[in-house]
Amino acid sequence: MNNEINNTIRPNSGPPVGKSPFRGKFLSKKGRVSPIRVIFLGGLNQIGKNITVIESETDIIIVDCGTAFPDGEMLGVDLVIPDFSYLESKRDKIRGLVVTHGHEDHIGAVPYLLKKMNIPIYSTPLTIGLISSKLKERKLMGNAKLFTYRAGQSFNVGCFKVEFIHVNHSIPDAVALCISTPCGKIIHTGDFKIDCTPSRGSMIDLARFSTLGSENILLLMADSTNADREGYTNTEKNINESFENLFNKAGDRRIIIATFASNIGRIQQIIDCAVRNNRKVMFSGRSMLNYVSIATELKYISAPDGVIVDIDHLGDYNASEVVLVTTGSQGEPMSALYNMAFSQHRKVEVGPNDFIIISAHPIPGNEKMINNVVNELMNLGCEVIYESMYEVHVSGHACQEELKIIHGLVKPRFFIPVHGECKHLKKHSMLAKNMGMQDSNIYVGGPGDIVEITPFSMKCVGKAECETVMVDGLGVGDVGSVVLNDRKHLSQDGIIVVVAAVSVREKMVKAGPDIISRGFVYVKESEGLMATAKRIAFKSISSCFDEDSFDWSNLRTRCRDDLYKYFHDKTHRKPIILPIIMEV
Amino acid sequence: MNNEINNTIRPNSGPPVGKSPFRGKFLSKKGRVSPIRVIFLGGLNQIGKNITVIESETDIIIVDCGTAFPDGEMLGVDLVIPDFSYLESKRDKIRGLVVTHGHEDHIGAVPYLLKKMNIPIYSTPLTIGLISSKLKERKLMGNAKLFTYRAGQSFNVGCFKVEFIHVNHSIPDAVALCISTPCGKIIHTGDFKIDCTPSRGSMIDLARFSTLGSENILLLMADSTNADREGYTNTEKNINESFENLFNKAGDRRIIIATFASNIGRIQQIIDCAVRNNRKVMFSGRSMLNYVSIATELKYISAPDGVIVDIDHLGDYNASEVVLVTTGSQGEPMSALYNMAFSQHRKVEVGPNDFIIISAHPIPGNEKMINNVVNELMNLGCEVIYESMYEVHVSGHACQEELKIIHGLVKPRFFIPVHGECKHLKKHSMLAKNMGMQDSNIYVGGPGDIVEITPFSMKCVGKAECETVMVDGLGVGDVGSVVLNDRKHLSQDGIIVVVAAVSVREKMVKAGPDIISRGFVYVKESEGLMATAKRIAFKSISSCFDEDSFDWSNLRTRCRDDLYKYFHDKTHRKPIILPIIMEV
Repeated sequence: MNNEINNTIRPNSGPPVGKSPFRGKFLSKKGRVSPIRVIFLGGLNQIGKNITVIESETDIIIVDCGTAFPDGEMLGVDLVIPDFSYLESKRDKIRGLVVTHGHEDHIGAVPYLLKKMNIPIYSTPLTIGLISSKLKERKLMGNAKLFTYRAGQSFNVGCFKVEFIHVNHSIPDAVALCISTPCGKIIHTGDFKIDCTPSRGSMIDLARFSTLGSENILLLMADSTNADREGYTNTEKNINESFENLFNKAGDRRIIIATFASNIGRIQQIIDCAVRNNRKVMFSGRSMLNYVSIATELKYISAPDGVIVDIDHLGDYNASEVVLVTTGSQGEPMSALYNMAFSQHRKVEVGPNDFIIISAHPIPGNEKMINNVVNELMNLGCEVIYESMYEVHVSGHACQEELKIIHGLVKPRFFIPVHGECKHLKKHSMLAKNMGMQDSNIYVGGPGDIVEITPFSMKCVGKAECETVMVDGLGVGDVGSVVLNDRKHLSQDGIIVVVAAVSVREKMVKAGPDIISRGFVYVKESEGLMATAKRIAFKSISSCFDEDSFDWSNLRTRCRDDLYKYFHDKTHRKPIILPIIMEV
Repeated sequence: MNNEINNTIRPNSGPPVGKSPFRGKFLSKKGRVSPIRVIFLGGLNQIGKNITVIESETDIIIVDCGTAFPDGEMLGVDLVIPDFSYLESKRDKIRGLVVTHGHEDHIGAVPYLLKKMNIPIYSTPLTIGLISSKLKERKLMGNAKLFTYRAGQSFNVGCFKVEFIHVNHSIPDAVALCISTPCGKIIHTGDFKIDCTPSRGSMIDLARFSTLGSENILLLMADSTNADREGYTNTEKNINESFENLFNKAGDRRIIIATFASNIGRIQQIIDCAVRNNRKVMFSGRSMLNYVSIATELKYISAPDGVIVDIDHLGDYNASEVVLVTTGSQGEPMSALYNMAFSQHRKVEVGPNDFIIISAHPIPGNEKMINNVVNELMNLGCEVIYESMYEVHVSGHACQEELKIIHGLVKPRFFIPVHGECKHLKKHSMLAKNMGMQDSNIYVGGPGDIVEITPFSMKCVGKAECETVMVDGLGVGDVGSVVLNDRKHLSQDGIIVVVAAVSVREKMVKAGPDIISRGFVYVKESEGLMATAKRIAFKSISSCFDEDSFDWSNLRTRCRDDLYKYFHDKTHRKPIILPIIMEV
């Protein structure tokens, strides 16, 4: 440890008083300290959609560009991407996108960003492989500028120097970033955990974090996903033993294992276990096949010849000779495991001769879907090993003790917890405080926050535009609150369309009114209700002709109000009522 | 222990061979054994909607009559009740409804049943109190025939003798049933756990289970809710200590505790802790006020004078003098805690001076809603103690070790696991098997199963009608799969109404076509899309006039198909398309 520096500025000791190693450095041409801005366009107060912008006076780099799952209120929405308005307004300053690892919440929105600005992308081999696959699918690969570096390597992006630091996570090739800025060094952990015996590769490069910790780190941004969990995340190695026991338990039955397609390490563990137990490995599910093919090509997955077999050959083997690795560990509708459970998988039929392992934890919100699938599988007679029954899954994120190690090694001047809901960020900030950091040196931010950092200060100086941009089919951002409110309303009580043709001149209804409903009541059993509604609509319309001055909007309003009242009295439901009155 | 009996029939030993204590008993007039039927109209392969029918040659009693929550696919549905068709077809045999305890999944559908048949209801004081409150609300109390018994008491219902046995659960006055039938004794545990130091009242009457166990129990039906959890459910008493610690931790802040309104024991614990800490107790939330009022009236809740204060007097006290007990522990929209979190509670505004305890576990499927509320509260600066962070909640259901005790004491000839999803029932049956029971003496059933039991055999002999009956507003059963499919479709992609008035004689469009959408796209930003759609619709309609024979259904189909194709190409969405073409 460099005692001199530690005598001058103690770690976590707040803004320096008196002489500082920062003094005199990082001054702009005008002689003043040129601040760095960090802008959070996602990843704070939410799970997913990770994207952080780092901006100097002259340059911008972007860290990650992920998607989020739509929440339960976003009916019909496929995914949520970041709001790129801030970046579009600063297009000329942007030097590149640096990606920490290949999960969807970090790379999912890359094609959407690249459609707006074709900036260079920097990442590790597997991550670049996964991004390439996305870009090919969207026909964006032709002009893409992709640069591959490995953990331990550094490169310049604009005025920034970026260093990749090896970390453990639930996908290979995950890195933390050390970004040297004109104002000081910033460490961004990306998603990480400390696993001293990971399923593949080596443990996180703690030595490098330690060395950097002696070099006056200005700012630490660290993964908060598990900040409310005590202790350590279990090592991946434990899972080997669990799998071995379960393979024994399965006996002569077929083994089916559902896991995240991106968890390449887990898939390798399954292959290794299959080899030891003389079983062939087959894969099912679109994303599983995609990940396995990319990872195999890049040599992140390896197997002796003949071990991996195409699922079309399933019939050639006895149950006891097969391990089937599949998607659907979250119970997602139409995933491979879901289709097996509901007897609609085209190639696999499951029953009492199947031993099924769900090697994943439920992502919050998915519990019920998984439950459904587990129950259906059990109903078909399968034995199902799920959740915490055995140690068949570990998290990819650091728990409190691991976070403390990083904080203790890095000893940053300033700290911003990232990647987590509000509760995670608050817990993480409390953890930093408990380790001796001053409140004023910690910032718990929210979406859009523009945080300005100098060697001596950190404060929020504004908000960047940071809307929820929803993708539905081909549409990006054309579904907003009006459409969602309508969908919500429609989903609860349905819609009633009242249609009539009238002649205002003749003061009479020429055709209709007809009443058509969808999602309201089962019409065949509600004929009386609908017949009365027709009479009410006719009366509402006719009554408007009797008045001194005819008014179209009055006509529609009266028709809607009368029917609303009638239906609500009779059913206590509030369908959308859409009067369409045409003049002929 | 009665060795003689145990020499004759060993517990769990399968059908008797040779002399049997059953031999010669339970014969019908015709000299043959008269079987008992058990019909499951709910509570199997699902959580909630508990209702079991026990039927002899001459009489029927019903055990419990509860509701279930709608699942995620049942859009707009308020609750699910049992299908009463089987009961209606046997109306004359029904002698009464026996209720084990006052939770919604056991009493919620009582008013719906009573509307169909005004049968006598038998239960314990608190449960009868809660049922009465429901019946008053529905104006069904006038003719209701309610009979109150306490644990330890017996009474006759038709040919059955029913005995109430005290059990522990998360609501007071829960009982198991021992039902003496012409064919032998049946024990139904209701919902239960074994708590030797419950928060109020005494521990479960294990002695009675033990005595009954020596009297040749024909059938055990037991609660499976926690059958996949190892070990024991923690005692309620632990929670006292947790509350005491948390009250200290709260210091001078206001304390807000969210819990289940029905958990009267928990509420009493909170009151006791408040008294020790010189705080007043206030209640918020409709169901909380309802439960507290009924429980106080029946003396299941007690507090020294002046401790319970109306929430309208909140302003009269300092934060440090108040405990607010509220609904919303599941994050339910519009519940009291939800309204506090989203700053829309009419009487309570929360902030950094609030210390909030969520004394409940998430019911599977509610995790995300609770998360939302916790995050919002933290965002407002509250400290929030949630989930497993501290021991502020214990389950109301028996885990594996407790279940084993009941099996070991009761030693039934036959066993049917009840109250649980498929995975719970299967686990429970495995537990019974592991305790030595023969496979053939265990039946894992499903909804509608009619199980016939004689002293020597148990088998499923048929299925009773057992539809999912959905309640939406005032409508019971008028929402079915057609309506739900429409709601689902509407919620995903919205609806497009195409309306036109035509004259077939003149072969022309007289008005329109107009296109109106709801929940599809934000129309103001999609004017071009809609304008083109109008032209397409006009062309579709016009083209039908050109043909030799005009056909209305052809017109509608063509219009729908052309627009479907257009919108799908442009947006990848599939709205419901409703062509309404009128003749004038």
